[in-house]
Amino acid sequence: LVKQFEGEGKDSGSWLGIPDDEFATVKKLITKEEVRVVTLAKLRLRQDMILWDIGAGSGSISIEADHLLPNGKIFAVERNPECRDFIKQNLQKFHTRNVNLVEGDAPACLDDLPDPDRVFIGGSGGHLWDILTIADKRLPADGRIVLNAITLDTLTAANEFFANAGYEVEVTTINVARTRPLTAYKMFEAYNPVYILAAVKQ
Amino acid sequence: LVKQFEGEGKDSGSWLGIPDDEFATVKKLITKEEVRVVTLAKLRLRQDMILWDIGAGSGSISIEADHLLPNGKIFAVERNPECRDFIKQNLQKFHTRNVNLVEGDAPACLDDLPDPDRVFIGGSGGHLWDILTIADKRLPADGRIVLNAITLDTLTAANEFFANAGYEVEVTTINVARTRPLTAYKMFEAYNPVYILAAVKQ
Amino acid sequence: LVKQFEGEGKDSGSWLGIPDDEFATVKKLITKEEVRVVTLAKLRLRQDMILWDIGAGSGSISIEADHLLPNGKIFAVERNPECRDFIKQNLQKFHTRNVNLVEGDAPACLDDLPDPDRVFIGGSGGHLWDILTIADKRLPADGRIVLNAITLDTLTAANEFFANAGYEVEVTTINVARTRPLTAYKMFEAYNPVYILAAVKQ
Amino acid sequence: LVKQFEGEGKDSGSWLGIPDDEFATVKKLITKEEVRVVTLAKLRLRQDMILWDIGAGSGSISIEADHLLPNGKIFAVERNPECRDFIKQNLQKFHTRNVNLVEGDAPACLDDLPDPDRVFIGGSGGHLWDILTIADKRLPADGRIVLNAITLDTLTAANEFFANAGYEVEVTTINVARTRPLTAYKMFEAYNPVYILAAVKQ
Repeated sequence: LVKQFEGEGKDSGSWLGIPDDEFATVKKLITKEEVRVVTLAKLRLRQDMILWDIGAGSGSISIEADHLLPNGKIFAVERNPECRDFIKQNLQKFHTRNVNLVEGDAPACLDDLPDPDRVFIGGSGGHLWDILTIADKRLPADGRIVLNAITLDTLTAANEFFANAGYEVEVTTINVARTRPLTAYKMFEAYNPVYILAAVKQ
Repeated sequence: LVKQFEGEGKDSGSWLGIPDDEFATVKKLITKEEVRVVTLAKLRLRQDMILWDIGAGSGSISIEADHLLPNGKIFAVERNPECRDFIKQNLQKFHTRNVNLVEGDAPACLDDLPDPDRVFIGGSGGHLWDILTIADKRLPADGRIVLNAITLDTLTAANEFFANAGYEVEVTTINVARTRPLTAYKMFEAYNPVYILAAVKQ
Repeated sequence: LVKQFEGEGKDSGSWLGIPDDEFATVKKLITKEEVRVVTLAKLRLRQDMILWDIGAGSGSISIEADHLLPNGKIFAVERNPECRDFIKQNLQKFHTRNVNLVEGDAPACLDDLPDPDRVFIGGSGGHLWDILTIADKRLPADGRIVLNAITLDTLTAANEFFANAGYEVEVTTINVARTRPLTAYKMFEAYNPVYILAAVKQ
Repeated sequence: LVKQFEGEGKDSGSWLGIPDDEFATVKKLITKEEVRVVTLAKLRLRQDMILWDIGAGSGSISIEADHLLPNGKIFAVERNPECRDFIKQNLQKFHTRNVNLVEGDAPACLDDLPDPDRVFIGGSGGHLWDILTIADKRLPADGRIVLNAITLDTLTAANEFFANAGYEVEVTTINVARTRPLTAYKMFEAYNPVYILAAVKQ
C-alpha cells in the first residue's frame, strides 16, 4: 500500500519555514512551525537519505524535509484516513518530489519500506514500544531516531527504550510563545512545550 | 571591502542542523542550534534571494543559509577582526558557495552591497536604529527583516522602529533547555531566552 | 467609595497556594497560581504594610496577600462591576481580614487611599502611565511597585516609565506548564508567559 | 540526632520572597527564589502542620516555610556537614522559630521524626525510592509530597513511584529568566528548568 503519491514536480525553490496555516490540517494538532524546524535540524538530514515519518499527521514534517532531501526518499506513514486526505492535499500544494504516502498501521506497514537512515516519530497510536523496536532493527549504526513527545508518559517510555537499547540520547525542550501580528496589543501566546528526543544508534 | 571569500564549492549535500560546537567561535556567543534554525525559518528564504547577515559573529547563520539559497547571495557583515577570522575558518570548513564576507562597520559598509530581499540582524554594535533605517530604505515591499534580541532594550527599540515604520511584526520567544548526552544523569540546562522579531515591510 | 468589605474574620490558618479554581472569576483571566505566588514574593511584603492592588480582577492577589499582611491594609481597586462581584464572593469565602474593596477608576480613586508601601498593578484599563505617575508620587523611597505584563506593549511602557523615574528594575519572565492530574496521559499544558516587573524607588 | 536548633525568636514579620543571595549557600545549588515560592505554594501548608524538608541544602525552603507554619514543626534533614553549617547560619540570620535541623542520612534518620503532613524532597542522595517508600508509609491520606526534579531521571523515577503508589500527581515545569538590575542593558538570564511534582496520597 505504498503509494507513489507525488506533487507536480515544480520546485518553488529551496526554502524553509512554512507557516502553520499553510497546511490543510486539524488546527490544534499540527507541529508548530518553530518545533518543526528544530525537529528537522535534530534529524541531521543529508541529501540522499531515506526518512520514515511515522504518524505523519498533516505531512508537515515530510513536506518541509522534501527540500532537504533532494536525492532522498521520504515515507509518510499515517493510519488515519482523514489525516491522509490532508496529507494528499498538502503534498499537491507544496509540489513535493520525494514524499511517498504510506497507508497503514505502524509498525506492521513498515515491512514494505526500505531501511531508513532517519526515523521521525510524531505519533505512535499506542504502539510506541513496537515501533521503536522495529525502527531500531532496521536502522544502521549512526542512524538517528527523533521523537516529539508532548506527554510525560511518551517522554518516559521513549527515554527508557533508548537507554535499554544503548542509544546516545539528547532531550531538548522547546517553549515557544508568539505575539499575534494583527492585534493592536502584542500579547504573547504560549504553545505547549514539546520534548524532542534525538537518539543515535551506537 | 566586500571580499569574494568562498569555500571550495564541494557541496556536502543539502542539510540543516549544524551542532554549535562545529563552528570556530567564542563559545558563549554563538546563536544556539535551535534558535538558529528558527531564525532561518522566520527569514522565509527563497532560493535566489539576497540576504544581509549583519553582525555575523561566527557566520553560523550565513553558513546554514547557504544551502537554502543555492542561487542567491549572502553578505556576512562583521566589524570585529577576531570574529572575521572565525568566519573565514567556518566558511572554508563548510564549503559555502554563496557567502561573501564584508569587513566594516554597519551601516556605513552596507552602501557597497546590492539591495537585500532579507536582512538578519544578529548584532548592531550600538547602531541599531541607523542600521534599521538603512535596511528599511533598501528593502523592497514584502521584504523581511529578522532580528534576534537578547536584551529588553533591543527588543523595545526594534519594536518601536518597526511600529513607526509601519511593518507587520511578529515576536517569537524561544526558551530551550537541553540534556547533555554524556552524563549519567540527564540534567536539563537552559539557554537564555531569545526574542526573534520578524518584520515585513508593507 | 472605599468600602470596609471584610470576610468573617475566621482565619483558616496561615497558608499559601490557593488553586485557581477556588476563586470565583472569569476563568481565563485569573493570575495563575504559580505566577501569583511569584508576584507576592516580588512584592517583598512585611506584616504591617499598606498594599494597593490596582486592577484587582477576582481579588486573588489581595486574598493571598492577606495572610502575609496580618497587621497591614490591602486596597483592592477594581472598576468593573462584574469583577467586583467576584471579589466580594471571594473575600467572603476566604475570610480575609485586611482587604478593602475600592470601587472606581484608577488613578482618580487612589486619592482616597492612604499612601502605599507596595503597589501591585494587575490591570490599568488603558491608564498605565497615569497610574504609575500617581503611584510614584505617593510611594516612599524604597517603596516597591510590581506589575504583571502579558503584552509587549505594557512591558515596554512600564519599563520606559521606570527608567525615566530612576527606579531600579528587575524583570522576571515566567513560563509555566502543568500536567492535568486527571487524564490517563500527563500532557503538559503551557500558560502564556508573564513578565513580572519589580521596581524599587530610589 | 534531632537538634532543637532554633533562631532567636524575634519575628521580623510575616513575609515571603527572600532573595537568593540572602542565604549562606553554595551559590549554584540554591533553589531559586521563584521556584522556592512555587514549591511552597504546591505544599499547601496550613499553620499547624508538620513538614519534612529532606535534602534541605541551605535550608531555604524550611526558612521560608517557617512563617507559613506558625504553630507547626519543620524538620530540615541534611547529611552533608558543609550544608548543615550553612543551614545553622541561615536559621540564626532569619530567626526561625519552628525549624529543627536533623543530622543524618535519609531515609534512616526519618525514624526519629514525628509523622509528617507534608514532605518536601529537594535532594535524595541517591536514595529516592527508599525515601519515597518511607515517606509514603508515614504520610496520612490527603498528605502531600512535593519533589523538585532537575534531571529527567528523577522526574521519571518519582513519577513511576507515585503512579505505582496510587497518588494523584500534578507536574509543573517552571522556566524562569531574569534581567540583572545593575547592568546598563537588561539581558535575560535563564535558570535551568525545574519540574515540581506535587503528589497527594489517596
